[in-house]
Amino acid sequence: MNGRQHRLLEVPPGVQCFVGDEVRRRRAIERQVLAIFEGWSYEEIIPPLFDYADVFSGPALSARTYSFVGRDGSLLALRPDFTSLLAKIAAGRLGQRPAPLRLYYSGEVLRYELPRAGRQGELFQMGLELLGGEERAADAEVLAVAAECLTAIGAQDWVLALGHVGVFGGLLEGSALDAAQLDALRERVESKSPDGIREVLHATHVAPEVTEAVVKLADLSGGVSVLDDARDAFVDVPAARAAVDDLAGLVAALVEAGLGEHLAIDLGEVRGLDYYTGLVVRIYVRGLGFEVGSGGRYDGLLGRFGRPLPAVGLMFGLDPLAAALEQRPGPEARVPRAATVRDADLGRALVRAIRERAAGTRVRLEAGDEP
Amino acid sequence: MNGRQHRLLEVPPGVQCFVGDEVRRRRAIERQVLAIFEGWSYEEIIPPLFDYADVFSGPALSARTYSFVGRDGSLLALRPDFTSLLAKIAAGRLGQRPAPLRLYYSGEVLRYELPRAGRQGELFQMGLELLGGEERAADAEVLAVAAECLTAIGAQDWVLALGHVGVFGGLLEGSALDAAQLDALRERVESKSPDGIREVLHATHVAPEVTEAVVKLADLSGGVSVLDDARDAFVDVPAARAAVDDLAGLVAALVEAGLGEHLAIDLGEVRGLDYYTGLVVRIYVRGLGFEVGSGGRYDGLLGRFGRPLPAVGLMFGLDPLAAALEQRPGPEARVPRAATVRDADLGRALVRAIRERAAGTRVRLEAGDEP
Repeated sequence: MNGRQHRLLEVPPGVQCFVGDEVRRRRAIERQVLAIFEGWSYEEIIPPLFDYADVFSGPALSARTYSFVGRDGSLLALRPDFTSLLAKIAAGRLGQRPAPLRLYYSGEVLRYELPRAGRQGELFQMGLELLGGEERAADAEVLAVAAECLTAIGAQDWVLALGHVGVFGGLLEGSALDAAQLDALRERVESKSPDGIREVLHATHVAPEVTEAVVKLADLSGGVSVLDDARDAFVDVPAARAAVDDLAGLVAALVEAGLGEHLAIDLGEVRGLDYYTGLVVRIYVRGLGFEVGSGGRYDGLLGRFGRPLPAVGLMFGLDPLAAALEQRPGPEARVPRAATVRDADLGRALVRAIRERAAGTRVRLEAGDEP
Repeated sequence: MNGRQHRLLEVPPGVQCFVGDEVRRRRAIERQVLAIFEGWSYEEIIPPLFDYADVFSGPALSARTYSFVGRDGSLLALRPDFTSLLAKIAAGRLGQRPAPLRLYYSGEVLRYELPRAGRQGELFQMGLELLGGEERAADAEVLAVAAECLTAIGAQDWVLALGHVGVFGGLLEGSALDAAQLDALRERVESKSPDGIREVLHATHVAPEVTEAVVKLADLSGGVSVLDDARDAFVDVPAARAAVDDLAGLVAALVEAGLGEHLAIDLGEVRGLDYYTGLVVRIYVRGLGFEVGSGGRYDGLLGRFGRPLPAVGLMFGLDPLAAALEQRPGPEARVPRAATVRDADLGRALVRAIRERAAGTRVRLEAGDEP
């Protein structure tokens, strides 16, 4: 093993290691967020760190999954995502429990990523899943929970950017694009490139008015009034129009609940994990170049585990939330001062330290230490 | 992939998954234990979930480590143990910080184990490490912290079973046993088999009086008076005698501190991780067939990372602690009752739920649900 001494203190790309104030800030955020999840009647699940690889199947994540062969020869994978695991648990361990189920989790996922700013292989996520229940109410609820979390931790100028994959899906209904074409198209829509969109669709049998509708879609982002523009633009495409109406109904309820100033619409938001079927959301904090959370509706996933249920979920990344709050030393940075217990006699020092602890004092034992 | 539908709800051997009261009990224990670690001025470290495999080298764990090849071709391993990681961090990230360092961690380790009662591949551990400082005081301190934790969580009839690997080491000093012989011998000592010990040592050049001393060692377990027997037994073996005196000095301080009734001595306790150099401890709760924690002194480990420092550490397994408390429903099982917020109008329901939450109430939203 060459370079062993060097390597021993080096950290592999993509892994994390936190000490000191970083840890305290992260724990404080985690405590606040999880208390709010509890406050909305969500119940914690501690899922396994790895499972059979096929639990996580799906093109978006499988290429980024750390997998390995177990002792019994089966292919295992470190969880790249919590949602699939919770769906499996809801269908299995909790299969007899009536819907709606409100579940949450907090822990690490592992993904191969190019190590660059804000991108790590080991990611801490805190998220919730609402399985079953009336769909619009469920969508609204998870967004209201997210809003309470962002306010509670003291995030400034945060935005819930909402989209709906049914708009894009509705426009392309019956167009028979293959997976590679769809991927290429999604990428062009995301990058808001009219020429790119036309180029991809030119090679297909899609009608010119569909192409122009997709070009229009890429441009539909901004305030909630974007939904009116979308209704006008897609008046002749019932499936796309229905998705816009669905999103507009949700937005109306959120505005009534006082969240209007934090909403943005981005109908060109069409990437994301492949299991999303309706609402998609990305959560931003202004001034931070990456999202602090994301989520969406995934009505098809639970059926894969034998318990068909509509579902919506949302998660925060602990790393970006901590980054968002980094500049402002919050109350979490305060550690109570420790009482130093010093005595040349070890037994006497222990007696005193134990007595101080019983009184609730933070102690620092220095018995035998050089003063 | 045959049997896919079946497999999808099956859980691989060795992994864990917790729901409901199990989660609440575990979180309550974790909260109490970590608050006590903080109370003795230990600082939390969040170490990586995996690292280069050579960080964890050592015969005791390497065969039980999940390893895999990273994208850059290096051999990585899921952490089978926290102590090596913390030693690396103390020598690297915290290399400029003066000793003593008081560090703690809470999280999962992964080990290949035969899946049987109380043995899992995925283990939750909470532990602390005291690096540097006067050695007897450090040993006493980590045991006092463990004692406070056991009392606080309400464990009944707990025992700190203390040993010292220097006694066994002292008896065999200069005996030139190879690793396989030592392993076989340790196993015979642990199983308190005089014939087995004689059989192993008969095949070596060890003097008959050494053999009989090791036979005697296997029998030296019980109350603190065992230390007097040990002093008599090893009066002619200075290194073994010194280790007994060392342990006796520690025990005297612990007795003075009021912990005498919880102490046991087991000088035949010679297994454990290969990096231990002095004190070894196993923590038991009467009536439970397995230990709830363990630890010891490892004065050689930090030198491997370039920062030679004496060190002692100790950890609790969250699984056995939870099992020890399982029978008695503690306060942790109580979940505050949720106020149901029900309104046919979603926006109005959200307004009411948000208002209840602002007042600190736990809510359960039923907007749109069938009543």
